Amino acid sequence: MPNVTPTEDEVAGWFDRYSNWGRWGAEDLLGTLNHITPSMRAAAARTVEHGRSVSCAWDVRMNALDDGGRIQSQRMMLRTGLGYRDGGEEDVSPAGARAVDGHLGTASEIISMAFHGRPITHIDALSHIFWKGRMYNDVPSAYVTDRDGATVHDVRTVAGGIQARGVLLDVARAQGRDWLDPREPVFPEHLEAAERAQGVTVGPGDVLLVRTGEGARRTNGDWNPALNGSPGLHVACVPWLSERQVAVLGADCPQEVTPSGYENLKLPLHGIAMAAMGLWLIDNCQLEDLGATCAELDRWHFFFSLGPLRLTGATGSPVNPLALF
Amino acid sequence: MPNVTPTEDEVAGWFDRYSNWGRWGAEDLLGTLNHITPSMRAAAARTVEHGRSVSCAWDVRMNALDDGGRIQSQRMMLRTGLGYRDGGEEDVSPAGARAVDGHLGTASEIISMAFHGRPITHIDALSHIFWKGRMYNDVPSAYVTDRDGATVHDVRTVAGGIQARGVLLDVARAQGRDWLDPREPVFPEHLEAAERAQGVTVGPGDVLLVRTGEGARRTNGDWNPALNGSPGLHVACVPWLSERQVAVLGADCPQEVTPSGYENLKLPLHGIAMAAMGLWLIDNCQLEDLGATCAELDRWHFFFSLGPLRLTGATGSPVNPLALF
Amino acid sequence: MPNVTPTEDEVAGWFDRYSNWGRWGAEDLLGTLNHITPSMRAAAARTVEHGRSVSCAWDVRMNALDDGGRIQSQRMMLRTGLGYRDGGEEDVSPAGARAVDGHLGTASEIISMAFHGRPITHIDALSHIFWKGRMYNDVPSAYVTDRDGATVHDVRTVAGGIQARGVLLDVARAQGRDWLDPREPVFPEHLEAAERAQGVTVGPGDVLLVRTGEGARRTNGDWNPALNGSPGLHVACVPWLSERQVAVLGADCPQEVTPSGYENLKLPLHGIAMAAMGLWLIDNCQLEDLGATCAELDRWHFFFSLGPLRLTGATGSPVNPLALF
Amino acid sequence: MPNVTPTEDEVAGWFDRYSNWGRWGAEDLLGTLNHITPSMRAAAARTVEHGRSVSCAWDVRMNALDDGGRIQSQRMMLRTGLGYRDGGEEDVSPAGARAVDGHLGTASEIISMAFHGRPITHIDALSHIFWKGRMYNDVPSAYVTDRDGATVHDVRTVAGGIQARGVLLDVARAQGRDWLDPREPVFPEHLEAAERAQGVTVGPGDVLLVRTGEGARRTNGDWNPALNGSPGLHVACVPWLSERQVAVLGADCPQEVTPSGYENLKLPLHGIAMAAMGLWLIDNCQLEDLGATCAELDRWHFFFSLGPLRLTGATGSPVNPLALF
Repeated sequence: MPNVTPTEDEVAGWFDRYSNWGRWGAEDLLGTLNHITPSMRAAAARTVEHGRSVSCAWDVRMNALDDGGRIQSQRMMLRTGLGYRDGGEEDVSPAGARAVDGHLGTASEIISMAFHGRPITHIDALSHIFWKGRMYNDVPSAYVTDRDGATVHDVRTVAGGIQARGVLLDVARAQGRDWLDPREPVFPEHLEAAERAQGVTVGPGDVLLVRTGEGARRTNGDWNPALNGSPGLHVACVPWLSERQVAVLGADCPQEVTPSGYENLKLPLHGIAMAAMGLWLIDNCQLEDLGATCAELDRWHFFFSLGPLRLTGATGSPVNPLALF
Repeated sequence: MPNVTPTEDEVAGWFDRYSNWGRWGAEDLLGTLNHITPSMRAAAARTVEHGRSVSCAWDVRMNALDDGGRIQSQRMMLRTGLGYRDGGEEDVSPAGARAVDGHLGTASEIISMAFHGRPITHIDALSHIFWKGRMYNDVPSAYVTDRDGATVHDVRTVAGGIQARGVLLDVARAQGRDWLDPREPVFPEHLEAAERAQGVTVGPGDVLLVRTGEGARRTNGDWNPALNGSPGLHVACVPWLSERQVAVLGADCPQEVTPSGYENLKLPLHGIAMAAMGLWLIDNCQLEDLGATCAELDRWHFFFSLGPLRLTGATGSPVNPLALF
Repeated sequence: MPNVTPTEDEVAGWFDRYSNWGRWGAEDLLGTLNHITPSMRAAAARTVEHGRSVSCAWDVRMNALDDGGRIQSQRMMLRTGLGYRDGGEEDVSPAGARAVDGHLGTASEIISMAFHGRPITHIDALSHIFWKGRMYNDVPSAYVTDRDGATVHDVRTVAGGIQARGVLLDVARAQGRDWLDPREPVFPEHLEAAERAQGVTVGPGDVLLVRTGEGARRTNGDWNPALNGSPGLHVACVPWLSERQVAVLGADCPQEVTPSGYENLKLPLHGIAMAAMGLWLIDNCQLEDLGATCAELDRWHFFFSLGPLRLTGATGSPVNPLALF
Repeated sequence: MPNVTPTEDEVAGWFDRYSNWGRWGAEDLLGTLNHITPSMRAAAARTVEHGRSVSCAWDVRMNALDDGGRIQSQRMMLRTGLGYRDGGEEDVSPAGARAVDGHLGTASEIISMAFHGRPITHIDALSHIFWKGRMYNDVPSAYVTDRDGATVHDVRTVAGGIQARGVLLDVARAQGRDWLDPREPVFPEHLEAAERAQGVTVGPGDVLLVRTGEGARRTNGDWNPALNGSPGLHVACVPWLSERQVAVLGADCPQEVTPSGYENLKLPLHGIAMAAMGLWLIDNCQLEDLGATCAELDRWHFFFSLGPLRLTGATGSPVNPLALF
């Protein structure tokens, strides 16, 4: 597929052209997850050879800000291990104030996360994105309310998890580079070049992970989040993603190149992929470990397993996607 | 193994007898996860036949209390879908106040959880439990601080996930009952009776899930959380769990029978299993769907996959454990 | 003023009739606080005789629910006093993990509150209530956004505090009763009867506090929040409040009788008083101490002082209103 | 009182020398608030001439960090004004999802604060500071627990508010300077020079506010919070504060100069003033408006009123202190 940059009008027109509204019924919630069949899932599991598991998530830092400087995560301890004597007794505090009984003590906490921010690894539910006030399959945006959150398209659609064949396209490695530049777009030709270099082909029902090297740049390179802007897929990849019948798209960045390159279109890939196609996205994957493992084994597909939290009314979930070889 | 109830002194003595401190080195963090080898992991994956995935988690209710009446979970919307017109424009709010650009809108939220409470499905990290002021492998409880949380034994020990053979022992079903009574103990003989009834044997490196029917009682039965008390494994199961080399123990209750039956021992199974043996626990599993699937397929083992959130300093993580057949 | 119950249509018509929109200018934010002049404020302060201060707030319970069963308040400790030795040293925790230097230690916390719920004592800012999508002085409700909160009419309008003459009308005491019944309305004639019994007259610029005995009923009586419904001012008091030029209205309940008695009007007093008149309300005052003090001194007016938190974008603030005699 | 810098040993010795433990009884919680009598309070109120009220608090910024880069405050909207039509109806959301009935709508939020950080204006309760593991009047630090917060010395000790004569010593203005330098200490001689310049004398039961110009420097000057360090009272002021019988000390900085100038003493003024003397502190006052008003009226005393939130178990409270002239 050649590298052609569509015009703004063409992109706007793609919403209808690549829409899956009604394709799997008027009540469909799964979107592109319909591409994954049970037999694909079983076949993927049976390809496991080494029993080697790789996490595709970053550590969740606590009491931290996201890349945009907004509050992202907090940990507030409810019980600590401070003040216990060797007997497990705390003899100074007021009676009953410690969770101590006999020898036992416990520690616990509250965690809080605004998980959609960068760099927390998370899945976007189809309620996360609206286009002209509509979610996937023509659901009005007003179904995401202040009181109840997402009353349709919450993340529990994938309560049973996502298990499928995973494929890594390591675009940076295929080009012999450590990482792509901050605002560098990935076009279909780059994806296909990686396929050729790696000897793998993305097909129906695959979980596609794209590595730009953003993680390496973040940890080893010249990182300045204030610079704003990320490498990622150009919206020109929409037809390719549709044609290949990709079930889930993940990347080591928020998926798409930012800025988008279009004056009046912000996050057009998110808009068209999620709201029109019903394509599930996993943002901010940590693909450094996965890239290294794939290169070491010279094997670019694996069994992919993801268990999102079953958060009622949530527009997504923090996750720890696992690749098993 | 016969059903013998140990005395309080015997149980206290088990801490040293079944301790794994030093067994895998003075710096070991994995505890019983050392029982799982890569080849066991691969073999488990290759048993998948149907490509059928079952979640072992409950939905996380939001803005809810735990069974003890404490605040457990909150969802606070940062952006909703209210107020969008069809053009995606909100023409009334002050300029710049909405995350709208061209056609696109987004929804997002903060979620917060005191996940150790009941009924959230979660994994306990080895920093969750102290015995006489010590965690597994002789780490002082004071290493769980108010500022930094668990500075040792946080949940990131299992960042790479837990993937292994899973076995369900459906104790209630094996006895032809809908559920065990609220404070009814499960002894080794009950586990072995379920093994015989189901034709399965728990062995080294297995993730053992025990179903008491607590979930059915909660949703269909006569449920009163104020009644306090749960069915579960009696501490008499400790020698059995050690001998069978179980890697992970989960149940549809907080694992062990409460009250414990010992005047001066609170949660003795938690204390000895976690602090002495380094046994990882998954509390409050939802095993209704799993039990039904196992019964339908007459197959009581499966590929088990769990990806805990990589929460820095956390004493555990909310999870969605997956069973794949 | 006789006790006449207006029809639903009459009440709806009062919005325009008693509106203060434009009265103090198109940009006015103060509403009825315009009734308080500096000389009134100084005169009120100079009436202080005894130097006796009475709080009109309830204790804020922590980790508690509001009367509607929603999460209201949390306290999460950031630093505790656990684990200090007499020398102020904590010799077990990892280096640097405690806020200890030499002899000194500190304790601190995060507090969180959904303060509009009952029974937290709080002031409502004029952004708290909309009527037909408008706030006081014709401001669109959409100026209260998810990102920025109240961009107009936030509580900082009263950053300089409210200091004025306060008057308590103890309606329950004037009737020789411990408390009014749960859904019992207070009409203008009841307010005037209390004035006569107490020998005080409510006038321009007064902070009017109305005691129904709801606090005594809550602490000493037969309290069941699930019963839903509260005594309070009937919407028929609107003309009286307007005529007397009351600056602020507080009560030991959420001000107005609930249910309202009108099929299609919910909280009509809140709607008309706040959105039309710009009348500031203080909900859930604790008037047991104030009532007792007034009765003891046989003095029903006092110097009133309130310092709301200067919360940016907030639709109100938790407060501790003080009466000084 | 001459400017003499005590040695580290001398300062350590002052803990006992200036201690008020037992002075007002073994159970005393008030500490230096015992210096304020009702007649002083009434006299202070009666000095009000102009009815002019000045806030001594900063606006509480939301979703912001404190000067140390820690998460300080959040506002999470529960209900916004988005999506209302003119009739007050929202016709698109799922039924029952909006708090709309007839014409009425409401907005509300959760606010959360780690209020002890800078720059939130707050009062420190006597549970905020420990010295050798003890709070004021010999209370063990372990009485501040993770579960219950401050079980002794919580902020509710001042539930009735603090009302007294307030005095501003404007140290910067008395020296003809805009602000003191970042780590510049204030000695007793500077306080006395301000007294002479202003014609006012600090005496028993006064609320003393000290202006260093830190607020002007923050808003108009060369502000870099990372520079760490603040002007403020040198610990050498302890004898002076004791002798003058100051009831409450506030400042436009965290009270004392930082760093302290002593290698092994961190926050020695906080330690001795709070834990030994029981002196109540108000941190991070906004004294720009107060300084300007005092200068304009050439009057440096006023009626001071403060109503802390009655937060159960809290080690302090965010506040809005008011000065009335």
